[in-house]
Amino acid sequence: MKTLTHFDKDGQARMVDISTKSDTIREAVAKCLVHMKPETFRMIQGKEISKGDVLGVARTAGIMSAKKTHDLIPMCHSINITGVDITFHPVREKSCIEIEAAVKTVGRTGVEMDALVTVSVTALTIYDMCKSVDKDMTITDICIIKKSGGKSGTYTRWQK
Amino acid sequence: MKTLTHFDKDGQARMVDISTKSDTIREAVAKCLVHMKPETFRMIQGKEISKGDVLGVARTAGIMSAKKTHDLIPMCHSINITGVDITFHPVREKSCIEIEAAVKTVGRTGVEMDALVTVSVTALTIYDMCKSVDKDMTITDICIIKKSGGKSGTYTRWQK
Amino acid sequence: MKTLTHFDKDGQARMVDISTKSDTIREAVAKCLVHMKPETFRMIQGKEISKGDVLGVARTAGIMSAKKTHDLIPMCHSINITGVDITFHPVREKSCIEIEAAVKTVGRTGVEMDALVTVSVTALTIYDMCKSVDKDMTITDICIIKKSGGKSGTYTRWQK
Amino acid sequence: MKTLTHFDKDGQARMVDISTKSDTIREAVAKCLVHMKPETFRMIQGKEISKGDVLGVARTAGIMSAKKTHDLIPMCHSINITGVDITFHPVREKSCIEIEAAVKTVGRTGVEMDALVTVSVTALTIYDMCKSVDKDMTITDICIIKKSGGKSGTYTRWQK
Amino acid sequence: MKTLTHFDKDGQARMVDISTKSDTIREAVAKCLVHMKPETFRMIQGKEISKGDVLGVARTAGIMSAKKTHDLIPMCHSINITGVDITFHPVREKSCIEIEAAVKTVGRTGVEMDALVTVSVTALTIYDMCKSVDKDMTITDICIIKKSGGKSGTYTRWQK
Amino acid sequence: MKTLTHFDKDGQARMVDISTKSDTIREAVAKCLVHMKPETFRMIQGKEISKGDVLGVARTAGIMSAKKTHDLIPMCHSINITGVDITFHPVREKSCIEIEAAVKTVGRTGVEMDALVTVSVTALTIYDMCKSVDKDMTITDICIIKKSGGKSGTYTRWQK
Repeated sequence: MKTLTHFDKDGQARMVDISTKSDTIREAVAKCLVHMKPETFRMIQGKEISKGDVLGVARTAGIMSAKKTHDLIPMCHSINITGVDITFHPVREKSCIEIEAAVKTVGRTGVEMDALVTVSVTALTIYDMCKSVDKDMTITDICIIKKSGGKSGTYTRWQK
Repeated sequence: MKTLTHFDKDGQARMVDISTKSDTIREAVAKCLVHMKPETFRMIQGKEISKGDVLGVARTAGIMSAKKTHDLIPMCHSINITGVDITFHPVREKSCIEIEAAVKTVGRTGVEMDALVTVSVTALTIYDMCKSVDKDMTITDICIIKKSGGKSGTYTRWQK
Repeated sequence: MKTLTHFDKDGQARMVDISTKSDTIREAVAKCLVHMKPETFRMIQGKEISKGDVLGVARTAGIMSAKKTHDLIPMCHSINITGVDITFHPVREKSCIEIEAAVKTVGRTGVEMDALVTVSVTALTIYDMCKSVDKDMTITDICIIKKSGGKSGTYTRWQK
Repeated sequence: MKTLTHFDKDGQARMVDISTKSDTIREAVAKCLVHMKPETFRMIQGKEISKGDVLGVARTAGIMSAKKTHDLIPMCHSINITGVDITFHPVREKSCIEIEAAVKTVGRTGVEMDALVTVSVTALTIYDMCKSVDKDMTITDICIIKKSGGKSGTYTRWQK
Repeated sequence: MKTLTHFDKDGQARMVDISTKSDTIREAVAKCLVHMKPETFRMIQGKEISKGDVLGVARTAGIMSAKKTHDLIPMCHSINITGVDITFHPVREKSCIEIEAAVKTVGRTGVEMDALVTVSVTALTIYDMCKSVDKDMTITDICIIKKSGGKSGTYTRWQK
Repeated sequence: MKTLTHFDKDGQARMVDISTKSDTIREAVAKCLVHMKPETFRMIQGKEISKGDVLGVARTAGIMSAKKTHDLIPMCHSINITGVDITFHPVREKSCIEIEAAVKTVGRTGVEMDALVTVSVTALTIYDMCKSVDKDMTITDICIIKKSGGKSGTYTRWQK
């Protein structure tokens, strides 16, 4: 039976001991959606006409946040991330932007949380950059879509 | 016409000058939902039988994250938060937990981003604490439901 | 009857709302003792003969830590500290160093925790700088000896 | 003769070069005591009657602080901690709580400082959570009780 | 006679007490130059042909760094910055980029250090983004060119 | 042809994937100059007459900043630094202080940025400690003078 590994047998929180786990290449891919008004969507896409690069700032914020994961999530181990890639997929008909982040490490534990933090902070930065024109934006579908490496092997979400 | 205030007229990002704005009491309330398997939901709710207090850890992480908002979101001003309250509403029939965070400050700028960061990190911590039993959890509906204070006055989302 | 103000009536942790409290000058003085071997004590005192300035490094670390208090202590408000003074009182006959830190702010809440963090990190840095020669060092008597300002007024510890 | 390794031969502080040391499993166990009034002790112990979980918040703060050690202690190397366990031993007759923290890493340097920071911040958080009812609390006996791993081998304090 | 205010009369470092100073609008403008090879200069300027936005990333890093000043410079007070503007002046004939940062606050102390940190981190980020093609880049002329506000009034550098 | 590796083929910023690079000992040496008035230079040098140890504080700040490099420079990997040495070379006839920082790691990527951040923050701290007597100080010549380790091998600046 599966258990909540972040608690010991008495229900006390702990940072799980991973000292004897092996260093392997591990990757996690997370995604989320940022929904907005069509007008906001057009403003973000229109950066070529010098309206400002919302997604550029958000990408930088997202990459920096990956390195702060252990400082945000209490039981996360601090790890040395070896790569972060953030991709934006604008979906004009739904007036939303899909964010996908792939995070890699060579270490003793996975990077699911780092990928989730990355997409979240990227999305939140989009919100911040656009909130003067659209306070109704909503962030949805934050989830892990794939992870690989480590003893538990590869996981793929049943539906993207 | 509304503009993206985080960019100047040449489209360059900047931290907006709020030097001449007034100190007022400002509050923002954000929410989000964490969807999970019924089994995971039961584990979280069952803390009374010493399975560990997932929501307690998440709440602490959320409150601490409110104070890191300016360090995560590039154009956010650093402010002194004067209060943070996090409430959990477990929705058994949907097997999800609603998180609501109310953040307050007395200052020259609002705390929408701080409230959004708070619910996001709270939700991500729930994910982290439970990911050993449920990797399919999804975080949705991150949004501002209310804000008050400041020149722009009160905002209430059209639907909660 | 006094209550634990960091919890609401349901026992949930929160950052207490101080929005309506007044800005006043507030000060807190904390102290602690670092006990060590006589040989270690002499090494620290002997900085004039180019053994290295243990207390200088510890003082800098302590002052910097005061500014991190809200990042270490979950329910602490982030405040703008307006002054930090650290004094060392070497007590040769007991082979120990007393550390005293006075922290000031102008704000809505006190700086007891900031003063306590300051003496603690100062003491821990002394430990770190000397641990290659003395692993038995012990830090004791961390406490608040005085605080002033704010609605609750002045507090003085019954014995120093 | 032992020397203060954090200084070079001219007495200048440095972060000691550990490039050629070996990666080994290292552990350190630190402890401290938090003394309080009997009434405060009872409040902390009485969490079952919804007074709020002081020790739960303190434990989370302690675990998070372990990951900040290199940011607090100037000459400490940044390392990847592989495990943190915090145990509370309430001592009713003395009205005090003993905190013990075991920290592990696989690396080139020990984790004594990380264990000491962990118990210190855990204790300081207890102080913060209870200071509205008891400003006289005192933290004592911060020390290393055991460490293992690395070239210098195992150390055990002469008396606990 | 002027003295080093960051030391007390015994030569001990301290965070200067500013509790009784007045809140006024304060601004500081700093600048620096980043010298590079003509080829590197062309790459940075050529962002319109999708080579990547070096200056956009550097600007975001610079703005974020302003908020970290008190965490980098030991005796700096933590303050709430109310505005940051970064301007780039490319000087083609000298193959260098001039960076100018204007930082504002409403507070008890000036923001010279914050402006200096901003231009420094902006310049260092340009170095990082381009070091794969040009390791010889050099950063020069970091200085304050103007400051205003506070008791000491306005300062203008004798030559820009 | 060399490219800006921090951007992908579409010009999007990323944290470069170093997962398959080898762990080797890597070192980088950076330097810079801090120019000041002769009077300021004498004050700094005169620490023996209890004017306060400007360079001691600056050295501590510099060493601590090396550990923050990944938090300041967006695309930098977080790494575990294994050693930092800072040397000051006062040049009386030019009334300037040369700062040299040697940073080491055992890892998958170099430490040029860490060495550059170290000399920059060391220099900025000197500025801060002395700005009450000399606002005209200027920091120049921030550059890498040597790096070794890794696939790209050793680099030495054409002129120091």
